[in-house]
Amino acid sequence: MKESRLLKLIAERSANLGPLVAIGPGDDCAGLRIAPNPSFPPALLITVDQLIQDRHFDRVTPLDLVARKAVSRSMSDIAAMAASPAWSLATGALPESMSDADADTLFTAMQSVARAFGCPLVGGDIATVPAGAPMVLTVTVAGTPHPTRGAVLRSTAQVGDALYVTGRIGGSFASGRHLTFEPLHVQAIALADTLSAGLHAMIDLSDGLGRDAARIGDASGVCLRILAPDVPLHADASPRGVLACAADGEDYQLLFTAADDGDCPAELPGGVRVTKIGRVEARTEGGPGCVIVDEAGHEHDATQLGWDHQ
Amino acid sequence: MKESRLLKLIAERSANLGPLVAIGPGDDCAGLRIAPNPSFPPALLITVDQLIQDRHFDRVTPLDLVARKAVSRSMSDIAAMAASPAWSLATGALPESMSDADADTLFTAMQSVARAFGCPLVGGDIATVPAGAPMVLTVTVAGTPHPTRGAVLRSTAQVGDALYVTGRIGGSFASGRHLTFEPLHVQAIALADTLSAGLHAMIDLSDGLGRDAARIGDASGVCLRILAPDVPLHADASPRGVLACAADGEDYQLLFTAADDGDCPAELPGGVRVTKIGRVEARTEGGPGCVIVDEAGHEHDATQLGWDHQ
Repeated sequence: MKESRLLKLIAERSANLGPLVAIGPGDDCAGLRIAPNPSFPPALLITVDQLIQDRHFDRVTPLDLVARKAVSRSMSDIAAMAASPAWSLATGALPESMSDADADTLFTAMQSVARAFGCPLVGGDIATVPAGAPMVLTVTVAGTPHPTRGAVLRSTAQVGDALYVTGRIGGSFASGRHLTFEPLHVQAIALADTLSAGLHAMIDLSDGLGRDAARIGDASGVCLRILAPDVPLHADASPRGVLACAADGEDYQLLFTAADDGDCPAELPGGVRVTKIGRVEARTEGGPGCVIVDEAGHEHDATQLGWDHQ
Repeated sequence: MKESRLLKLIAERSANLGPLVAIGPGDDCAGLRIAPNPSFPPALLITVDQLIQDRHFDRVTPLDLVARKAVSRSMSDIAAMAASPAWSLATGALPESMSDADADTLFTAMQSVARAFGCPLVGGDIATVPAGAPMVLTVTVAGTPHPTRGAVLRSTAQVGDALYVTGRIGGSFASGRHLTFEPLHVQAIALADTLSAGLHAMIDLSDGLGRDAARIGDASGVCLRILAPDVPLHADASPRGVLACAADGEDYQLLFTAADDGDCPAELPGGVRVTKIGRVEARTEGGPGCVIVDEAGHEHDATQLGWDHQ
């Protein structure tokens, strides 16, 4: 069972969801209108993500970091739309062998992290799975669109745009950064404040720079051309090279396209750097949504980089 | 790890969730305002529930019934607030051994059931768990409050109210009804239409008549007194008696309290019967939120009936 194939099928079958739905399956968040009037923009952006033991964290990962990652993954989708977090829901399928104290620690930490990010937990559900079965957490986060720019989609990149990434990528698992990253909602809102309508398309990097860049390319019907030497890598990951790092996943940085008019800030709140790593080109017939051009000028189809993981 | 204990702890720690939150943890749905103005009523009611293999369904349960139950459980929480369904999100932690065709069947059925209930799937997430681990599905459903009655809470039962239940209870698992029940949102809306402000408190029966009735009693600071001979039981469950049936769980009927003025309809849309099964009394110091009075006049503390399962 391939997740990406199934998600694509679901998105394809999601036509005609009714007049409340402004943004259906296939972007970082769904977008809902306040009333069934197709001329209304979305008033609520909402996303849900899962965190699964042995896959997204280990059995020895401290529970406060498990809680933090569970909330942060969904918060990163909120950031990818430049939305402001508002509230959240959480579920836990917890091994029946888990002690009361551990369950308590986990949910207290989720409440605390969610509140700190501005999306307090307002509801949820807890159930048990047999001892030994992997713990499954889900966090739903709702947010409101940027008041002037609105929701920033994957599907609105334009030929001629510059392509930017925040921070550095690569080695997120080996370094442990996948557990401690900061979701970049404040930075995304600052970008929308500064660039306004010039901020064209955005995604958060969860499955790898290559695969996620291709998602913008595919959704927008364009090709994102990434220049490998320009991609900022973490020092502990850089010996492996851009192509390896582009497949790592779980960077939770923002990748965005914007009008190439020099207005893009070089630094965002919290000292987060912005780096120009390529540009948006017209799509060639049957071509990929993203290519990475290496030091020698060879083009690599980025669609096959990254992992099949949402 | 006891689910009910942890859920209670979470609700207790959920004070001060901010001005958007009109109804926090502890009711069937959370309630969110459209703007951070404490005088606004909730505009959106939202609930999430989990469906776990080997617990809520078997490995041989047909996937279309698994999908139906996953959506229906959350829809039943929407019904318990007398809300109208609007949209939904779903997640699946699916065994990696599941075939593409089965995953497809499952999600196509979830899309179809959700659409039929008026809450189309607008987003979600899919991930894999190791073969052999239990499948975990979650469904979040959002709805809008009844336009005149508003959201019907658990905490607003009044001393002197009559206590009613829809349909019949008992034997849901043995009979297979736990897989095929109809969520009663249409009936709940009809009740709110008819009784308006006279409809005081409501809950859906997921954990057993005894335990769920006590939840209204506890939330409202009253005692629900149920007369056992008046409780309508399914024919296949009645030989086991009311006390056994009250502990069965997964009835997904509505239990509600209303002004005892004879205005309550005896039948709701779809031929769903309404039966008066008791009344709301003042709570004695330290007493339970619900007692069931048997044929011989003996009182049973209902708090200990039902199972620890949300």
